[in-house]
Amino acid sequence: MNTFGKYITLTTFGESHGPAMGGILDGMPSLVKIDLAEIDRQTERRAPGRSALTSQRREPDKAEILSGITADGLTLGTPIGFIVRNRDARSGDYAGYQGRFRPNHADYTYYTKYGINDFRGGGRASARETVSWVIGGAIVRQWLSAMGIEIAAEFIETNSVEDAKNSLDSTGGAVRCVISGMPAGIGEPVFEKLHSRLAAAMMGINAAKAFEYGDGRDMSAMRGSECLDLFGEEIEGRPGVYRFLTNHSGGILGGISNGMPINFTVYFKPTPTIMQDVPSVDTDGHRVVINPKGRHDPCVAMRAVPVVEAMAALTVADMIKGASRKGSQY
Amino acid sequence: MNTFGKYITLTTFGESHGPAMGGILDGMPSLVKIDLAEIDRQTERRAPGRSALTSQRREPDKAEILSGITADGLTLGTPIGFIVRNRDARSGDYAGYQGRFRPNHADYTYYTKYGINDFRGGGRASARETVSWVIGGAIVRQWLSAMGIEIAAEFIETNSVEDAKNSLDSTGGAVRCVISGMPAGIGEPVFEKLHSRLAAAMMGINAAKAFEYGDGRDMSAMRGSECLDLFGEEIEGRPGVYRFLTNHSGGILGGISNGMPINFTVYFKPTPTIMQDVPSVDTDGHRVVINPKGRHDPCVAMRAVPVVEAMAALTVADMIKGASRKGSQY
Amino acid sequence: MNTFGKYITLTTFGESHGPAMGGILDGMPSLVKIDLAEIDRQTERRAPGRSALTSQRREPDKAEILSGITADGLTLGTPIGFIVRNRDARSGDYAGYQGRFRPNHADYTYYTKYGINDFRGGGRASARETVSWVIGGAIVRQWLSAMGIEIAAEFIETNSVEDAKNSLDSTGGAVRCVISGMPAGIGEPVFEKLHSRLAAAMMGINAAKAFEYGDGRDMSAMRGSECLDLFGEEIEGRPGVYRFLTNHSGGILGGISNGMPINFTVYFKPTPTIMQDVPSVDTDGHRVVINPKGRHDPCVAMRAVPVVEAMAALTVADMIKGASRKGSQY
Amino acid sequence: MNTFGKYITLTTFGESHGPAMGGILDGMPSLVKIDLAEIDRQTERRAPGRSALTSQRREPDKAEILSGITADGLTLGTPIGFIVRNRDARSGDYAGYQGRFRPNHADYTYYTKYGINDFRGGGRASARETVSWVIGGAIVRQWLSAMGIEIAAEFIETNSVEDAKNSLDSTGGAVRCVISGMPAGIGEPVFEKLHSRLAAAMMGINAAKAFEYGDGRDMSAMRGSECLDLFGEEIEGRPGVYRFLTNHSGGILGGISNGMPINFTVYFKPTPTIMQDVPSVDTDGHRVVINPKGRHDPCVAMRAVPVVEAMAALTVADMIKGASRKGSQY
Repeated sequence: MNTFGKYITLTTFGESHGPAMGGILDGMPSLVKIDLAEIDRQTERRAPGRSALTSQRREPDKAEILSGITADGLTLGTPIGFIVRNRDARSGDYAGYQGRFRPNHADYTYYTKYGINDFRGGGRASARETVSWVIGGAIVRQWLSAMGIEIAAEFIETNSVEDAKNSLDSTGGAVRCVISGMPAGIGEPVFEKLHSRLAAAMMGINAAKAFEYGDGRDMSAMRGSECLDLFGEEIEGRPGVYRFLTNHSGGILGGISNGMPINFTVYFKPTPTIMQDVPSVDTDGHRVVINPKGRHDPCVAMRAVPVVEAMAALTVADMIKGASRKGSQY
Repeated sequence: MNTFGKYITLTTFGESHGPAMGGILDGMPSLVKIDLAEIDRQTERRAPGRSALTSQRREPDKAEILSGITADGLTLGTPIGFIVRNRDARSGDYAGYQGRFRPNHADYTYYTKYGINDFRGGGRASARETVSWVIGGAIVRQWLSAMGIEIAAEFIETNSVEDAKNSLDSTGGAVRCVISGMPAGIGEPVFEKLHSRLAAAMMGINAAKAFEYGDGRDMSAMRGSECLDLFGEEIEGRPGVYRFLTNHSGGILGGISNGMPINFTVYFKPTPTIMQDVPSVDTDGHRVVINPKGRHDPCVAMRAVPVVEAMAALTVADMIKGASRKGSQY
Repeated sequence: MNTFGKYITLTTFGESHGPAMGGILDGMPSLVKIDLAEIDRQTERRAPGRSALTSQRREPDKAEILSGITADGLTLGTPIGFIVRNRDARSGDYAGYQGRFRPNHADYTYYTKYGINDFRGGGRASARETVSWVIGGAIVRQWLSAMGIEIAAEFIETNSVEDAKNSLDSTGGAVRCVISGMPAGIGEPVFEKLHSRLAAAMMGINAAKAFEYGDGRDMSAMRGSECLDLFGEEIEGRPGVYRFLTNHSGGILGGISNGMPINFTVYFKPTPTIMQDVPSVDTDGHRVVINPKGRHDPCVAMRAVPVVEAMAALTVADMIKGASRKGSQY
Repeated sequence: MNTFGKYITLTTFGESHGPAMGGILDGMPSLVKIDLAEIDRQTERRAPGRSALTSQRREPDKAEILSGITADGLTLGTPIGFIVRNRDARSGDYAGYQGRFRPNHADYTYYTKYGINDFRGGGRASARETVSWVIGGAIVRQWLSAMGIEIAAEFIETNSVEDAKNSLDSTGGAVRCVISGMPAGIGEPVFEKLHSRLAAAMMGINAAKAFEYGDGRDMSAMRGSECLDLFGEEIEGRPGVYRFLTNHSGGILGGISNGMPINFTVYFKPTPTIMQDVPSVDTDGHRVVINPKGRHDPCVAMRAVPVVEAMAALTVADMIKGASRKGSQY
């Protein structure tokens, strides 16, 4: 299903070459101040055509907010509906794929599941879907920011993107993200651990193949004595709240934040589309050769930076809203 | 909250040193044949004290099935309630921890969240909780098995466990899992991708720090041309269903299974408890030294093997039950 | 929250005097044939200004389908996004209410909950919201219809609407609904009984005050022997499937359909707005007099007929999609 | 599925003649004081055999709390697991029903849905299931009580129970319930209206056929001017919070509480089992005569009083826990 979250939910719709993408962000508290221009800034960050290395598709990606926020930028507490028109679809680029399964794409699995082949440009599997995630994230992170929580991700080049492009090939990459200002005590201990929810959110991004937090995979080869995060000083004016001397744990213990920065890394596979002939099959069972002509990024991971931030924001906001309070007061 | 899944759900309860652990498995179809002895075999696999390298705590871990399955092992389609008594608690071992936060454990974050310090033996954060997961998994995997789906995990020693134990230290490790016999077309494309759900399930296991599927993290440094899974032959008697020549993708494309074996790896941090003096603080803000005496595995990852299998089974069963069918028939 | 259903969900947004209403219908199977003109016919049925007795507000209420259905009317299995522009808002009519709580409306409770007073025309509490329900219902009932399930409601005048209108007053009314062609075996026995879900759906319609099914409230004064539905003949060609001689039960036993027509009645209070002076208070605590000028139906129940049908369709479709099947096959 | 609620959830299991009933109450805040003896008092209220008019089945119905509450009665914030053994099953009484569908019971619909006939004593459809609801309710209402919210229901005899019993027949009845001390602002405006959730909860109780709140069904024949609840005085010391002069609305407007007592009525059909010969069919399609011998209440509604209270408590607690707060603070 197409809903993310439980307390603050984002439900999305849209095929990449249909009339519009869009979504509903539900559960935002009322009276939160939203800078609407910030939404445009975030969608601009994820838009293609930002550098010589990313896809040349250019479109304005202007979100139209249809409800839930007053003209002067106050949330009403009601669901925030929005759409983004698909203006620059050029579906002709994809026409050649009709009925041909592009290897390492979702074409074959979609066809197996849905039994229909009308997903021009990848349908729901297209990275274009993430525009709605960035819009949702751009709203909730303003609420987080008002609480002092900031999210920043960066691209890590694990292989030369330029070399890959010049070879008419593609490459993978990684995105590292830090959430600072998190209060301690956020997360649910068993099936809704904070890092479990982050993992699910990140693995939902197109082309993600691995997730780790704190010292991550490397901890599997470490000794216990090497990765103890010892208690440091109490934070001034906040008795019982500590800093830790190190942060091997990545800000989360037992699924609950400990007040240190949360950090994690997402690893992405190479863009499946490469500018070379690739043998495949079509829906009639014929052997075919695919020779891509559309606009494609040689490295999807580069454009994933604002998407990682948005999904981190949606995850954290959801868990903060759902966090149970102590004692009898509600 | 303490519920896993959406269509076949497992809801659990129990503190490790309270009277019992238990759970409710809801959503199983009726008329599925269950071998009740198989549940005991699975809990036996995860029980401590199975080798010189694992914790010496010994308990029978006999699940009492309270509903949902007839005496001759047929599911009724009603919720399956079960409990496991905590017979061998010896909470005295833990008495010394009262009020002292064990570093890298969940003690401090639980206390921050709940404001109460009665979690003998780790409360809900204890690995004992996973006995309920293994019981739930032992039931659903029999349903999967009847469909031809099998799940097998193995421990990968990334560091010498024996050396760690001899040094009064602990170590991390990894568990690799393969799901074979999966039909193509299972998984939901956007927020409920099959690998996204598997990642969440696995990261929920105690001490998990990283998850990857298919060629995983390594794909971030690969070229697109190196990891294409090309279409092989049609499977005999199943027109339109293909084998692939390779399986870099790990059996999932666009969040939906492609019919190849699904494989993934979970990486675990070292057991946080080590048999050495460790400085910490207590709930009164005093500096203390923790000197563990309880029974502790030097490597939690070793005992995670049946837990990984159980959570994989619960995830796959949930997604198969929830899978939408094509066309107008229901 | 603003989502209805669990397996086929409708999530909606929109304030009655904001730019648009809209929603996302998620979970429809793929390859279902949809007559798009039928959606217009259904929204036309609920539109105001259809008779001398209903509100004179006139607007086209043309749903724009943004995703999930191909141009030739086949569902893709992906979420169906839609919007309806609010073209004829005339919010001036409501300007006089700013800050004044209309008695028996939701103004005061909204203000208490959200702390903001920008809900021109009733905001989310307006009956305009139901346009999205009718659109969602218009889609799912075509799927139900293909299975032989039909839904028909009618207005029951319990008090003269014309008299009420002439007295510058308003009146209540009732809507009776029958669902025919239901297969037996739909519904969940405990907390998700079919009639329980219908009750929740119907009580969610503006102004609904009571719900009953089968012989309903009258059964509380009947003897057991008076309301037994005895087994009639087996239905030809369907061994083990029976007709019943009577239908006191209203087609549901133990929360599960028995194959007889499902029937229920919803009772509505009078339109709270009446064309008379009504004393009230405003947000500043001043005593005020409210003298309505907008367009208001003297009887909201009349316009609820297609809304009752739509919510019945959404409820039944959701439960059919979620219905567990017998045995090991999925 | 067998889960009630979203923020504070009760998940139950148990067949009436299996080894035990039980449940998991999840989502209770930590540090709430619970009087465990109060749980016994509530289960005692619903137990059969309390008067000459109710079923003679006698059992202790002692809940065993297995987790989530400390020995001295403090909630831990973790799930509260409990079981009640079925000690006095006497399934022989029901043996005669094997394979015979009792009219107006759930036997036939269960068999249609699940394809299995092992539900001695009604399986999950038995009123015995409600013991778990009363236990869950007994816990949450102590939390509500600490906030000043009290719930009280009473039986309304709409037909003589004694006469029905003497005629070897059964009769329906009604239960009226009042929730006092509710703060204003609780409830969600669209699909999760407070009365919508109450309706679903009440209609889930065995034999419930109708639900109404406030002036209920009678309002459908009233004029708008007759049922206006005008604003009264501000409550002392609470600026902007009002009493109303009347309470036709039953304490809820637009799905949100207005601070007045919430009142509603549930109408129940007669006990389907009567002490007379009743013609029916069996699973082999033979015509049979059913002649009940078990212990049966002539009026199920009488015993529903504590069940109505429990479900009201669970509903209100869930909505209070899920209530969104205003502004940026969490």
